[in-house]
Amino acid sequence: MIRVAVLGYGNIGRAAEQAIVAAPDLELAGIYHHDDNLDDLQADVVLLCTPTREVPAFATIMARKGICTVDSFDIHGQISSLREQLMPLCLEHKTVSIISAGWDPGTDSMVRALLLAMAPKGLTYTNFGPGRSMGHSVAAKAIKGVKNALSMTIPLGTGVHRRMVYIELEDGADFKTVEAALLRDDYFAHDETHVIQVESVDELNNVAHGVHLTRSGVSGVTHNQRFEFNMEINNPALTGQVMVSCARAAYRMKEHGEYGCRTMIELRPIDMLPGKAEELIRALV
Amino acid sequence: MIRVAVLGYGNIGRAAEQAIVAAPDLELAGIYHHDDNLDDLQADVVLLCTPTREVPAFATIMARKGICTVDSFDIHGQISSLREQLMPLCLEHKTVSIISAGWDPGTDSMVRALLLAMAPKGLTYTNFGPGRSMGHSVAAKAIKGVKNALSMTIPLGTGVHRRMVYIELEDGADFKTVEAALLRDDYFAHDETHVIQVESVDELNNVAHGVHLTRSGVSGVTHNQRFEFNMEINNPALTGQVMVSCARAAYRMKEHGEYGCRTMIELRPIDMLPGKAEELIRALV
Repeated sequence: MIRVAVLGYGNIGRAAEQAIVAAPDLELAGIYHHDDNLDDLQADVVLLCTPTREVPAFATIMARKGICTVDSFDIHGQISSLREQLMPLCLEHKTVSIISAGWDPGTDSMVRALLLAMAPKGLTYTNFGPGRSMGHSVAAKAIKGVKNALSMTIPLGTGVHRRMVYIELEDGADFKTVEAALLRDDYFAHDETHVIQVESVDELNNVAHGVHLTRSGVSGVTHNQRFEFNMEINNPALTGQVMVSCARAAYRMKEHGEYGCRTMIELRPIDMLPGKAEELIRALV
Repeated sequence: MIRVAVLGYGNIGRAAEQAIVAAPDLELAGIYHHDDNLDDLQADVVLLCTPTREVPAFATIMARKGICTVDSFDIHGQISSLREQLMPLCLEHKTVSIISAGWDPGTDSMVRALLLAMAPKGLTYTNFGPGRSMGHSVAAKAIKGVKNALSMTIPLGTGVHRRMVYIELEDGADFKTVEAALLRDDYFAHDETHVIQVESVDELNNVAHGVHLTRSGVSGVTHNQRFEFNMEINNPALTGQVMVSCARAAYRMKEHGEYGCRTMIELRPIDMLPGKAEELIRALV
């Protein structure tokens, strides 16, 4: 059994715990909160389910202990530099760190890589939603006069998105003033944005999300090769499950001496799955 | 530049040649017909574009020469045993053979593996078509009285398919007799099959094909996670391109000393793509 611990116990941490317990070849090696003392933590792999900005520090601590990590670090512009930062640590301490292992970045990245191998020229569009954007919801909540906010991402195709922003006002706040401030905010100024006042944001909350990823491209010299990947999912449940599947891959890569920091496009799909290679090949190929 | 040769020059071989020429990091190391003398063949990788039943023999010859191979061997029930057969040869001669590298088996296999990692419990259905089934067309053509035949696979969902069989009769053959014989044939007896007499099968021929692959499954303990992968493609163009992308992966795996016989679910997506890891990660993850 591969011993997998969970660090951070919000929505993702709880979903990851469930996926560990459901797996035939993994056992839960403990649940830690991000302010716990980690000196006695023992595990083959630790899932970093903390807020994304805390990931680099915890990944560093674990690499120094020689423990593999998996995170779902989701700041797209900083993934490559996080990989560069963790790579020498992983090599020095003979460990594996799989970063940005969620659904985007994560499994969507693998699909984008696969489609590029199938049709090297062309355009891929990743359309998100309908679903809650955490970043936009936080940005909306930071506007003066907003008590609580939910920003839904609505896909309009070709990577263009509408923002439907549901806000609960603080006592005495003026809707028109708040709406104008929100529409000027850099998070919303570039997209079609609708602001809607509601009594209770909490009553609208829902962890459903979706992706509609398309590619039209060229295989060799043949144009009009068309591909699409769609999903409608519970967001934390999928993120937790993907992290758990990557924990298995991290463990196996360490066993094979393939140390280093890797993104999901650098993993073999088979390493994410329980069972013997021969049986998986018979069932899936 | 990676030197890639093509062995077998039918639809797939021609498409593979085009994909090699279009690739920025590959060069064509020659085109061979399956009865050519192969003693002087020099290449980093040879694409085996021969009929599928000839693949094991040519893969063996190439492995003994220390040359990597890629094939699109498509007899699903024999893939695992072909891998077992080629594995020791590849290890002995320090080479890499990537087998069953097309779209199914091939890229569809990678998608099925990925979906299993995302939702370990549930049902995946692979629905093929609309498109020509080579095996069923050959079986229809073998019926007494049939001059030429085209069997189209029509997806009805949940992995159930209809067969639309277009036949050109030999002079003097009776349609009703031929139809009855065809419907009794083991290739057609188990599916909804429609037989249609036409003047010219050649005028219907079209290399378009498609896939509609679905999974509804469970991530952790969360049900109703829904995924689908669709494509509408030119069949030989995609097969040739996938083989060429796998040639790159085979070359890199050999460079890293990762010798052996592998299916596509055992490849890292990044190894199929040209360019530097850092740039691919920035573009795709």
